[in-house]
Amino acid sequence: MNKITPIEYFHKNRERMLEELKELLRIPSVSAQPFYKDDVKRCADWLINHCKKIGLIAEKRETEGNPLVLARTPGYKEAKYRYLVYGHYDVQPPEPLELWTKTKNPFSPVIADGNIYGRGTADDKAQLFMHLKAVECFLATGTPLPCGISFLFEGEEEIGSRSLETFLQKHAEDLSCDLVIISDTGMPALNCPAVTCGLRGVLALEVTLTGPNRDLHSGIHGGAVQNPAHVLCSMIAALHDQDGKVTVPGFYDEVCNLTEFEKKQFLNLPYNDEEYKKSLGVEELFGEKGYTSTERRMARPTLEVNGLTSGYQGKGGKTIIPSTASAKITCRTVPNQDAKSLQNKVCAYLEKICPKTVSIKIEKEQAGNAYLIDPAGKSVSAAIRALEKAFGCKATIMREGGSIPIVVDFKNYLKADSLLIGLSLPDDNAHSPNEKFSLECFDKGIETSIYLWNELVS
Amino acid sequence: MNKITPIEYFHKNRERMLEELKELLRIPSVSAQPFYKDDVKRCADWLINHCKKIGLIAEKRETEGNPLVLARTPGYKEAKYRYLVYGHYDVQPPEPLELWTKTKNPFSPVIADGNIYGRGTADDKAQLFMHLKAVECFLATGTPLPCGISFLFEGEEEIGSRSLETFLQKHAEDLSCDLVIISDTGMPALNCPAVTCGLRGVLALEVTLTGPNRDLHSGIHGGAVQNPAHVLCSMIAALHDQDGKVTVPGFYDEVCNLTEFEKKQFLNLPYNDEEYKKSLGVEELFGEKGYTSTERRMARPTLEVNGLTSGYQGKGGKTIIPSTASAKITCRTVPNQDAKSLQNKVCAYLEKICPKTVSIKIEKEQAGNAYLIDPAGKSVSAAIRALEKAFGCKATIMREGGSIPIVVDFKNYLKADSLLIGLSLPDDNAHSPNEKFSLECFDKGIETSIYLWNELVS
Repeated sequence: MNKITPIEYFHKNRERMLEELKELLRIPSVSAQPFYKDDVKRCADWLINHCKKIGLIAEKRETEGNPLVLARTPGYKEAKYRYLVYGHYDVQPPEPLELWTKTKNPFSPVIADGNIYGRGTADDKAQLFMHLKAVECFLATGTPLPCGISFLFEGEEEIGSRSLETFLQKHAEDLSCDLVIISDTGMPALNCPAVTCGLRGVLALEVTLTGPNRDLHSGIHGGAVQNPAHVLCSMIAALHDQDGKVTVPGFYDEVCNLTEFEKKQFLNLPYNDEEYKKSLGVEELFGEKGYTSTERRMARPTLEVNGLTSGYQGKGGKTIIPSTASAKITCRTVPNQDAKSLQNKVCAYLEKICPKTVSIKIEKEQAGNAYLIDPAGKSVSAAIRALEKAFGCKATIMREGGSIPIVVDFKNYLKADSLLIGLSLPDDNAHSPNEKFSLECFDKGIETSIYLWNELVS
Repeated sequence: MNKITPIEYFHKNRERMLEELKELLRIPSVSAQPFYKDDVKRCADWLINHCKKIGLIAEKRETEGNPLVLARTPGYKEAKYRYLVYGHYDVQPPEPLELWTKTKNPFSPVIADGNIYGRGTADDKAQLFMHLKAVECFLATGTPLPCGISFLFEGEEEIGSRSLETFLQKHAEDLSCDLVIISDTGMPALNCPAVTCGLRGVLALEVTLTGPNRDLHSGIHGGAVQNPAHVLCSMIAALHDQDGKVTVPGFYDEVCNLTEFEKKQFLNLPYNDEEYKKSLGVEELFGEKGYTSTERRMARPTLEVNGLTSGYQGKGGKTIIPSTASAKITCRTVPNQDAKSLQNKVCAYLEKICPKTVSIKIEKEQAGNAYLIDPAGKSVSAAIRALEKAFGCKATIMREGGSIPIVVDFKNYLKADSLLIGLSLPDDNAHSPNEKFSLECFDKGIETSIYLWNELVS
């Protein structure tokens, strides 16, 4: 009997693996809706059984919320190199159901047009499954793994990873590893696989101005008293200059600028301002002068108003001077910025520019730091090589403008960097109806994962 | 048998008149709520019967909405001088009921602390009733009236006087008169009766800015595209300068400035900035530089944001760049300004300062002109004399910052000025729980009305 390689094993077993993925997708593990509570648990159990079936040592770890799945290759603890694959088995709510067209039932996955459709395909079940299947290909063929691999799957990612941070804090030593591998992000296009080297952080606050102690009749009082909506608008207008730069003193002080290497790599990304404008339906893009739109989205800090509220908002009009006006504001932070101190700077500036004619109250909310793995480092280069082998084309690096707080937690508690190899495509409709995952990404993803382990240790 | 004067008759019959007023107040003629539809009609019928009872020729005039009450002194058409008393018999909804303390039932009027409490006391049943009772005092004592007096009471004032404008247009000739008398406004204090010589007009518009074609993830897109909430704030900030002046080109062009006479008279008004600040709960007043707060409230045009809406407004945060941002804006106009052309100026300016990064849509709503009766003219002087006789103190003139569109309609359709002799006090809680009317105002109001007719023709 000829020994076959992990890659060969994968191709022989692909159809069965897809059937298994469908089984996983059929479990409606919606973490946000109490209705699905038992399904979430059933999903954790399914994964544990599946991990055991393919030869991993797996256990359920209970938390105050949904259980964690922890599975390891045999001999993990003694391995010279140890990697932790993180993923999440919970999914977004499927609503609005009437907008699902490729499959009537979001939890009855179907294959069509080279994609697999269903809730949780791209985010994140198919992506975590790729790594499980890659390890199966080693174990089933008796091919030695060059490293220990553990899997940590949580069931609360879509509701803020409440239990995971506590778990990391408590079990940091037990979970120690050289690197965390995460496939829960995206790549720009099928012919452009990419490693995500940076994430922005996010800080939030809400500012409320109060003028008169009640809404006032704008006829009787209009002209005599400051309107807090006017003040709020003036203050928000003062937060940016005409070139799109944030005017908060010290806002850019700690920003780690993009290296020439990164700037050059970003040029490989298949982004096009004309197409981007069309997709957003805007005449012109706008942002901080001196940077490309890609640089601004991925590597520059921003300050955005997410919501404005004041006075009457119903149909028609109401002739009042509103008593209050408020704005929800978030900033995206970039590597080296300390989110908490930046939050303080924004608050201090708002307080400074607020006139005495109104009173100001600011509520500070979350403040999470950005993340950066060395884009020219060993781990990223290994991932690039694995992607290039699997996809047969040039791979590049990018950054993600959004925030994944758990990556910062891995750094804080496990002292481990995270390698973000996300294979979701921009049209995968994560969080939306008709969520899908490309079968080509699924195939190449498994191959990437098979190649990855040897590249990482080489 | 000695003939008695109208004033003597009033004092003899005051208690009975108060009982009649209570009867009128017990009818819950709430025009805004369909539940009270029959009561509104019953109220019109009650007034018609009452008018007939005191010797007027009265008839119900049906409209598409609630009926009008039209009543006249005998021989009205042949009278040399003819005056039209306008009032409204509909009232505001009584809610929130739990806040009524002086009477548990807003439609069970009670007398306490020298006031009569109940929905519709100040606004406007007691005030219209004063004029009816004054005329009764003439008719019952056989005292000749120096003029013809007609009464026009509508049942839709609190819902926009929908039917009255049509009625005025259709029956202008039949309704023709030398002057309209209205008691539906206020006076500053018991020892400061005042004739309201001017009203501000009001124009309204709603501006909506659209940026991207959907709310965008502020992580993925933040930095690349203009946020319409930022643009809206910058545009609104640009509508006023630091001195509180509106910056819309031509905004003040047609303003009829206050005469020295008016400015001097305004100094008689018992307004005090310190007390005013306290009542509004603000540290500082604010408004157009170069004018007192009274002048700004009564005789200067304003531009106020009445409502701001953009993005996420619920609890907590949502990290989006909103697709749209909108503001409801009204301007108070003053005498000589053409509201429609001012509305156009504001819209044109907003369109001019809107950048290309967002699209702008403006909906124009109402545009009503201000009103001014000659403050030094014959009618106002006559009213001042009547007030001074009745109240036994100096009366003055003032303006009202709010708008009463029907006054402009009287001018347009009947070519008649309106004399506004409002006796409601600032603490009468019109439109609020515990609405009341001072019995002293009721008494002096009837006396004022008795004196008024001879003063007007003298």
